[in-house]
Amino acid sequence: MEEVDHLAHERSKAQFDGDAMKVVWAGSKHALDVADRMARLVASDPVFRKDNRPMLARKELFKNTLRKAAHAWKRINELHLTEEEASMLRVFVDEPSYVDLHWGMFVPAIKGQGTDEQQKKWLPLAYKMQIIGCYAQTELGHGSNVQGLETTATFDPKTDEFIIHSPTLTSSKWWPGGLGKVSTHAVVYARLITEGKDYGVHGFIVQLRSLDDHSPLPGITIGDIGTKFGNGAYNTMDNGVLQFDHVCIPRNQMLMRVSQVTREGKYIVSDVPRQLVYGTMVYVRQTIVSDASKALSRAVCIAVRYSAVRRQFGSQDGGPETQVIDYKTQQSRLFPLLASAYAFRFVGEWLKWLYADVTQRLQANDFSTLPEAHACTAGLKSLTTSATADGIEECRKLCGGHGYLCSSGLPELFAVYVPACTYEGDNVVLLLQVARFLMKTVSQLGSGKQPVGTTAYMGRAQHLMQYKCDVCGAEDWLKPSVILEAFEARAVRLAVNCAQNISKAPSPEEGFSELSADLVEAAVAHCQLIVVSKFIEKVQQDIPGRGVKEQLQILCNIYALSVLHKHLGDFLVTGCITPRQGSLANDQLRSLYSQIRPNAVALVDAFNYTDHYLGSVLGCYDGNVYPKLEEEAWKDPLNDSVVPDGYHEYVRPVLKQKFRVSRL
Amino acid sequence: MEEVDHLAHERSKAQFDGDAMKVVWAGSKHALDVADRMARLVASDPVFRKDNRPMLARKELFKNTLRKAAHAWKRINELHLTEEEASMLRVFVDEPSYVDLHWGMFVPAIKGQGTDEQQKKWLPLAYKMQIIGCYAQTELGHGSNVQGLETTATFDPKTDEFIIHSPTLTSSKWWPGGLGKVSTHAVVYARLITEGKDYGVHGFIVQLRSLDDHSPLPGITIGDIGTKFGNGAYNTMDNGVLQFDHVCIPRNQMLMRVSQVTREGKYIVSDVPRQLVYGTMVYVRQTIVSDASKALSRAVCIAVRYSAVRRQFGSQDGGPETQVIDYKTQQSRLFPLLASAYAFRFVGEWLKWLYADVTQRLQANDFSTLPEAHACTAGLKSLTTSATADGIEECRKLCGGHGYLCSSGLPELFAVYVPACTYEGDNVVLLLQVARFLMKTVSQLGSGKQPVGTTAYMGRAQHLMQYKCDVCGAEDWLKPSVILEAFEARAVRLAVNCAQNISKAPSPEEGFSELSADLVEAAVAHCQLIVVSKFIEKVQQDIPGRGVKEQLQILCNIYALSVLHKHLGDFLVTGCITPRQGSLANDQLRSLYSQIRPNAVALVDAFNYTDHYLGSVLGCYDGNVYPKLEEEAWKDPLNDSVVPDGYHEYVRPVLKQKFRVSRL
Ligand SMILES: Cc1cc2nc3c(=O)[nH]c(=O)nc-3n(C[C@H](O)[C@H](O)[C@H](O)COP(=O)(O)OP(=O)(O)OC[C@H]3O[C@@H](n4cnc5c(N)ncnc54)[C@H](O)[C@@H]3O)c2cc1C
Ligand SMILES: Cc1cc2nc3c(=O)[nH]c(=O)nc-3n(C[C@H](O)[C@H](O)[C@H](O)COP(=O)(O)OP(=O)(O)OC[C@H]3O[C@@H](n4cnc5c(N)ncnc54)[C@H](O)[C@@H]3O)c2cc1C
Repeated sequence: MEEVDHLAHERSKAQFDGDAMKVVWAGSKHALDVADRMARLVASDPVFRKDNRPMLARKELFKNTLRKAAHAWKRINELHLTEEEASMLRVFVDEPSYVDLHWGMFVPAIKGQGTDEQQKKWLPLAYKMQIIGCYAQTELGHGSNVQGLETTATFDPKTDEFIIHSPTLTSSKWWPGGLGKVSTHAVVYARLITEGKDYGVHGFIVQLRSLDDHSPLPGITIGDIGTKFGNGAYNTMDNGVLQFDHVCIPRNQMLMRVSQVTREGKYIVSDVPRQLVYGTMVYVRQTIVSDASKALSRAVCIAVRYSAVRRQFGSQDGGPETQVIDYKTQQSRLFPLLASAYAFRFVGEWLKWLYADVTQRLQANDFSTLPEAHACTAGLKSLTTSATADGIEECRKLCGGHGYLCSSGLPELFAVYVPACTYEGDNVVLLLQVARFLMKTVSQLGSGKQPVGTTAYMGRAQHLMQYKCDVCGAEDWLKPSVILEAFEARAVRLAVNCAQNISKAPSPEEGFSELSADLVEAAVAHCQLIVVSKFIEKVQQDIPGRGVKEQLQILCNIYALSVLHKHLGDFLVTGCITPRQGSLANDQLRSLYSQIRPNAVALVDAFNYTDHYLGSVLGCYDGNVYPKLEEEAWKDPLNDSVVPDGYHEYVRPVLKQKFRVSRL
Repeated sequence: MEEVDHLAHERSKAQFDGDAMKVVWAGSKHALDVADRMARLVASDPVFRKDNRPMLARKELFKNTLRKAAHAWKRINELHLTEEEASMLRVFVDEPSYVDLHWGMFVPAIKGQGTDEQQKKWLPLAYKMQIIGCYAQTELGHGSNVQGLETTATFDPKTDEFIIHSPTLTSSKWWPGGLGKVSTHAVVYARLITEGKDYGVHGFIVQLRSLDDHSPLPGITIGDIGTKFGNGAYNTMDNGVLQFDHVCIPRNQMLMRVSQVTREGKYIVSDVPRQLVYGTMVYVRQTIVSDASKALSRAVCIAVRYSAVRRQFGSQDGGPETQVIDYKTQQSRLFPLLASAYAFRFVGEWLKWLYADVTQRLQANDFSTLPEAHACTAGLKSLTTSATADGIEECRKLCGGHGYLCSSGLPELFAVYVPACTYEGDNVVLLLQVARFLMKTVSQLGSGKQPVGTTAYMGRAQHLMQYKCDVCGAEDWLKPSVILEAFEARAVRLAVNCAQNISKAPSPEEGFSELSADLVEAAVAHCQLIVVSKFIEKVQQDIPGRGVKEQLQILCNIYALSVLHKHLGDFLVTGCITPRQGSLANDQLRSLYSQIRPNAVALVDAFNYTDHYLGSVLGCYDGNVYPKLEEEAWKDPLNDSVVPDGYHEYVRPVLKQKFRVSRL
């Protein structure tokens, strides 16, 4: 294949220092270096090949995933990779597997909920992968409502054991990743029953399979729950079903950091505060937000590059046609997503800081910021995953027909990503939690208790309720303070309106439930404000590199004004801005699209993704799309023979009139 | 499995005559009867089994599709089915295949563009399926821009033949369904070149494969273009790639209804008006709108039933938990989609009438309504397919985690549906066409030329520009006239604003292109008005059956007010309604949700879909979801063995520390 950079002209147009932008995206020079090395390591290793994934049948696909996971572990060990490097390597292997749950849920659960002794016993085994663990919470009948789980763990003082049991069909564990075929152990959530009393849901370490021959232990039935959305995609994961028939585990396998059961069967709550558990949730959701920016940026990278290659219409006198990225409709769909990818990257970075801050405070027994941090991560998890799922599909559509081919990479990216809207908290359920927190904050406004962190702006509610936006010309919308106040006013007003309407209901609970659709909108407004404000803070920092800050400034404004345009109804119905100001924001947005246009390709190059990681013939670095599309097509199994299997039985008889019966 | 109707209680709550509603949905008693018989015929025939589709590898899947297509053809012949019955049967077989393109594109193309003589020759062969045809227009390099196609058809007066040729890689035909493996013939679009002159794109009937052994004819290279989005889904279709190396066809295989090439090579335009071609597009797009209501209603049926079965949270004193359909957030996401399914059904029905009307006029040489009909079908195709694609995915999310399993039916429904947003005109490109038509209409307003059909309201532009909505209380929003005027005013004002802004640009073309994102919004507003107005017209008809009209009235209002709420910014920025009126609409919407709630399950029962057609364990008629989910899970190939293939090579070595190397 010819070696030309079809996007060279696009790259030469960039008005900023691409290498400096790479550092900004990666977070630091060091992070960029690690990511770059790991990405290349994976891309150059044939075992990590991904392009055949959509064509493999489930069993082959799964076996291949086991192979990759083992190979990755082997390389991690051989190369003595650091923890940071190892986790980066796993990112670039880019294939969901039991390993994710082992490191991402099993280990953190033991760390967060296990006593020191338990950690000492189990963590070394887990770190060496002498045991492989999963996280078995959800059941067939209960996901969002964790308190409704039905699996029981009944303490038997005679044997000093818990009896784990699935009393109903709906109590079957259902969904845990890594459970179906691989895990030897699980943290199982079950209702703790002792001395005849139900103490609610607790975590237990349960061995599932024999370490000798991998067969399920007596009393345990396990299987895979079946094919999921998409080709390849999440079907590399063995999400499982698990039923217990009176399985006994030693008492000391209950995770006892916050509560214990004594030898006698007494239930005791320790003095370690329960809120600690929220710390783990803040951690996990923070990683989900940073994954959102990764997934969205991949899709955007593909769509931007292809939109610069693809030409359609507008040829003048036989010259080349217009690049579709030059159409304003294409820009108005694509550039807000490019801006969102950057916005989510920065809010994810900030969440990392927040998690560190919360952890530090927890260690100093300061729980004051925890509820706010918890609401904030829940809300941002919801906002960023929903926007990313929608954004990937929009990127697919932006590629026209070719985006529908698996070789574009976009179908698999979408199918593998969308469950992020559901796991770790259904996005609507999470927004309702945020809304509850906002209503509480509003109700305490008069009380002298100052709202903290991301809700601090609510302390200025009185001012914001009266505020009038003073935008007179389109360029006024470029001022960070103007944008920020408009978003703050909108968020406060939506929240206060909800609070007022709730207060008219017979009871706060009825009011909350009746108005919950509005409350979700108020929660979204609050979360969007957080993203906008963190982007603005980022841009106000000192950022080295020619033109880098300017580009980020433009992206920040595109993010804010495109959100404003999309939710214009909110801003107008609350009187935060006037119709005229809304139109001016739209005018400004158009001009921002023109400004970002020459930099678009360079801005996705800054993600520094290899062609392997992108996994897309439309998004390849050199833009040499058409020969690659063709080459991929011929690999399809249907092309193994010219005349298809089935022709003789099912096509020829049709053509040869074998099925025609004369009408009587 | 137990035989209980878990939804019986829901069904008993319905406040209308379900059988009468079935007739309304089907269109007539006769249509209901045909659909019912054909659906049962398919459901009871084991050959038409669908549940294993997501698990089959591409080749098996495809072979199975060939089998189903042949079997359907056999049954159609054996049972002497009418054309209406046969096409219904194909709907319920519910598997994309070459047959769709043969009947849906190849035959209509010959009918629309062939001379009487050509029709006499080719149609009987096609009707008996002695030849199988596809529609080969799109190329690797050109889809939307049909005028940019590169394939050439050069007339050679020496041989009286056209030489069909693919001069470049990008001129390869790419995407045509049925082409890859099955079709013996194609209508190929190519640039007609005669006497050294390029006359642009014309259609040609080209034989592709031998009728003896199915091998491609000399000079023809064909293959499948590879795996597409989703499990099963559209992978049953052999979308193909096709390259010509100087392939000769007789002159009389050019489709010559509107233009001809003579024996001498002269290009002649006949007196049959070119606009006739638009008639076919109106026809095809009309069927797409009616398919949209089918696809959306299936997803909604699944989500409504499952939401009534699924319970989560809110148990009081150990009683049953709340059905998730009772949460207002669930309602505010689900009921607008239920209303949309009905709305699209009725606008589809009206489009059928419009097509008949246009055809009649064309026969009488009346072309006056064609541009409006064309814009209207283009716009409605775009609006309904976009809303349906998004709606199916929303229904999937509404089912929580279980919606992500293929056994829910929703992933496949989505993946198979989404290309409708791209084929037969990319949805954004179509909206730009609508916008162009609207701008023309606005520009002619002063000229005395009265806008017709769906643009008639623009004739009242002056009134609508000044109109002030007089809603004072929430119940005012129930008046059809109030809703209609608000939507009309919004549509006119957005269009006129665009026209005014365009007029400020250096040239109309530059203005149009600069403002195209706004123009698309104006086009959407126009199309939503059409849907709302046709729904209102429908409800104003005489509709028999207890409570039927009342339910449709509620659905109509839900459709209109939910669209208004979603696009509130439009209504406010144009000053059509006040912020207070916007809030009142929202209050009314909440109350409408409560009114429709007890009828929701019966309203989806009215679609009269069999469990086979729905293909979803979550949406099954009896609501017996959990045992079915479990049963499906065990069928996955991964569950063939307890210990997975690959354990010995790739899992055991990890557990047994085979990859650990001591650090030096
Ligand atoms: C790919 C994938 C991987 C997973 N991995 C794991 C794993 O490793 N371990 C594990 O334990 N679990 C896992 N899960 C399960 C996951 O955590 C649950 O699916 C998730 O918590 C959502 O719960 P649900 O499925 O019960 O949804 P439901 O709660 O049943 O949601 C259904 C609908 O009801 C609505 N709803 C529910 N409650 C309310 C309410 N109070 N108010 C308003 N609306 C409401 C929701 O918004 C949704 O629209 C996984 C799931 C998926 C899809
Ligand atoms: C499943 C499937 C089945 C198909 N079956 C057939 C078939 O049987 N026969 C056949 O001939 N073809 C078929 N097609 C091809 C289909 O008709 C084309 O994909 C479709 O016309 C879109 O064209 P495109 O892919 O070139 O998109 P493009 O035109 O390349 O679109 C890419 C992007 O550019 C934008 N864009 C393009 N032009 C403009 C403009 N002027 N202004 C603003 N934006 C613009 C689009 O909005 C889109 O976002 C099929 C396609 C699919 C996906």
